Amino acid sequence: MTDNISDALSSSPSASRSVSLLGLGAMGTAFARAWLAAGYSVTVWNRTAGRADALVAEGATAAASAAEAVAANALVVTCLLDDASVGAALEGADLTGKDLVDITTGTPAQARARGEWAAARGARFLSGGIMAVPPMVGVPEAGGYVFYSGSPELFETHRAALAVPVGTRYVGANAGHAALQDVALLSGMYGMLAGITHAFALVRGEAEISLKEFTPLLTGWLMSMSPTVEQVAAQLESGDYTSDVVSNLAMQVAGVKTFVGTAREQGASPELLTPYFDLMKRRLEGGHGAEGVTGLVELLTRDGNG
Amino acid sequence: MTDNISDALSSSPSASRSVSLLGLGAMGTAFARAWLAAGYSVTVWNRTAGRADALVAEGATAAASAAEAVAANALVVTCLLDDASVGAALEGADLTGKDLVDITTGTPAQARARGEWAAARGARFLSGGIMAVPPMVGVPEAGGYVFYSGSPELFETHRAALAVPVGTRYVGANAGHAALQDVALLSGMYGMLAGITHAFALVRGEAEISLKEFTPLLTGWLMSMSPTVEQVAAQLESGDYTSDVVSNLAMQVAGVKTFVGTAREQGASPELLTPYFDLMKRRLEGGHGAEGVTGLVELLTRDGNG
Ligand SMILES: NC(=O)c1ccc[n+]([C@@H]2O[C@H](COP(=O)([O-])OP(=O)(O)OC[C@H]3O[C@@H](n4cnc5c(N)ncnc54)[C@H](OP(=O)(O)O)[C@@H]3O)[C@@H](O)[C@H]2O)c1
Ligand SMILES: NC(=O)c1ccc[n+]([C@@H]2O[C@H](COP(=O)([O-])OP(=O)(O)OC[C@H]3O[C@@H](n4cnc5c(N)ncnc54)[C@H](OP(=O)(O)O)[C@@H]3O)[C@@H](O)[C@H]2O)c1
Repeated sequence: MTDNISDALSSSPSASRSVSLLGLGAMGTAFARAWLAAGYSVTVWNRTAGRADALVAEGATAAASAAEAVAANALVVTCLLDDASVGAALEGADLTGKDLVDITTGTPAQARARGEWAAARGARFLSGGIMAVPPMVGVPEAGGYVFYSGSPELFETHRAALAVPVGTRYVGANAGHAALQDVALLSGMYGMLAGITHAFALVRGEAEISLKEFTPLLTGWLMSMSPTVEQVAAQLESGDYTSDVVSNLAMQVAGVKTFVGTAREQGASPELLTPYFDLMKRRLEGGHGAEGVTGLVELLTRDGNG
Repeated sequence: MTDNISDALSSSPSASRSVSLLGLGAMGTAFARAWLAAGYSVTVWNRTAGRADALVAEGATAAASAAEAVAANALVVTCLLDDASVGAALEGADLTGKDLVDITTGTPAQARARGEWAAARGARFLSGGIMAVPPMVGVPEAGGYVFYSGSPELFETHRAALAVPVGTRYVGANAGHAALQDVALLSGMYGMLAGITHAFALVRGEAEISLKEFTPLLTGWLMSMSPTVEQVAAQLESGDYTSDVVSNLAMQVAGVKTFVGTAREQGASPELLTPYFDLMKRRLEGGHGAEGVTGLVELLTRDGNG
């Protein structure tokens, strides 16, 4: 099945099993290895040239300059530190007729600007947001993927090549939307990490509480609360934030003193959670005590007291 | 199996299939219904007497006062608004020889103080922290449970009765530990909710992004990151915060500008995430750039810059 798809795509005029990759950090190196393992011809470039040596020993071709790497193939992938380094690396390169795929992390606006910059230089552009860490690259069962947005034609032409390192999810022609969804998922994760940090800060001082017993309970509780994501989405779409509310905001705000009080008793700063509690209080003061937590999304994207 | 256990326990001198329940809010009512459904004899009391009517129609006995409810059975369960209301409700009751199980939410210190208060009045004491919402009560497959801590003898005597409404997890003789683990899990959840709130605030303004497509990706990403809980616990136990680190703090802090920048571009306040980012920066400045995020737990429970 995968072979059929890639055969079909290889027969399209501009697709080929070769790629130029600029940037051999942890992520770029993992991508290069995955393409080499799949039999792709890979031309690599890195600012610090020595980082290409291991890959050359594994079959990659090292380009002497970024411009030379760009010249070598139609498909050019940049995986650098940040958007500024992409601009710096590509400065002297001729992008005419190239398909530039930038999987460097950045903001939506940076991705859109980079797309316009590429178009002005005669290249098609695709921006990627990587939802994986290097050990997940080349390991399909790890479930990693890259959000892609920008030129749909570029994505169609190179989808087989792009699918080699990790999965792909094309999320539309707006070049900023890959970055936006990438950042949105990671932001969700950072909130979860903050909650986990606070939870461990509360219990770690108690010699009688075994972290081995506590840990699966915390994981299980977070998993069991994950359907909240769907509920919030459904309420945002319907605009009705009070239907099917099991724990209303008024009740939840009444519990805040227990959360803050417990943190204090345990010598843990509540600083990671207080902004959320403050938002709950503001929404309650706005007269929305019968809602669940969906209305807080609105408050976060609005000035004033909602 | 359940019957064998409850038969065995019913034959112990103090266990019986009867319970007094004080507090008929959403949760107390759900507990009362579960006991009635299991054939228990249930005596109820509520400050606002009318709230007992429906339960009386279903087979409960209404006590005229809290003291009368306490007198009716050895096992007395309080499920009230907060710890102060427990003190108020039980003020005139004779607790001598009673087994008081308080499943009202409170802090660990409140639970310990309530335990001493009960002991001074001749009662055994167990404190509960409810990990369920009312619709999960009486529905074993919903996975709800109550953390219990305090008198192990009380718990053994009444474990069959306590297991009727939702599951039970006895977490030790320290009466405060049920509340502590309850608050810790809910705190973790509030962090996750804050992350979810921020994620939706980022994408909801974009007409081209379908929440139906985005939502399962956010859920999936949070689920895929949940093993972090185990990693943090393992590192806290070993004291080595740098082993098996895939995304080190230095790299993560370098990404903060993208998260804050994206929030700004999307007109979303970053206030829910900035305290976590600030903690990451403080830990990095403390010279811990090679760690993952485990060290932040330490920073949260310490003064100074760790
Ligand atoms: N690693 C992850 O877990 C992960 C996960 C998701 C997304 N990402 C994203 O993937 C991208 C690459 O990450 P990484 O982990 O590979 O980073 P890394 O290991 O720190 O490598 C950074 C790369 O950028 C190059 N670079 C930095 N400044 C440059 C400049 N001014 N001009 C040219 N090249 C420059 C470096 O070259 P030198 O060797 O010469 O320094 C190196 O090749 C980043 O945008 C990152 O956010 C990474
Ligand atoms: N509902 C949930 O999802 C949930 C989940 C986990 C834990 N809990 C905890 O379970 C406990 C009960 O919650 P709930 O949802 O049943 O609350 P609720 O519906 O608000 O009911 C509160 C109860 O407390 C009584 N009460 C309040 N002040 C009192 C006082 N000074 N003296 C005597 N009685 C007083 C109320 O009596 P009146 O009828 O006279 O007002 C009512 O019976 C709380 O500690 C809550 O945190 C609830």
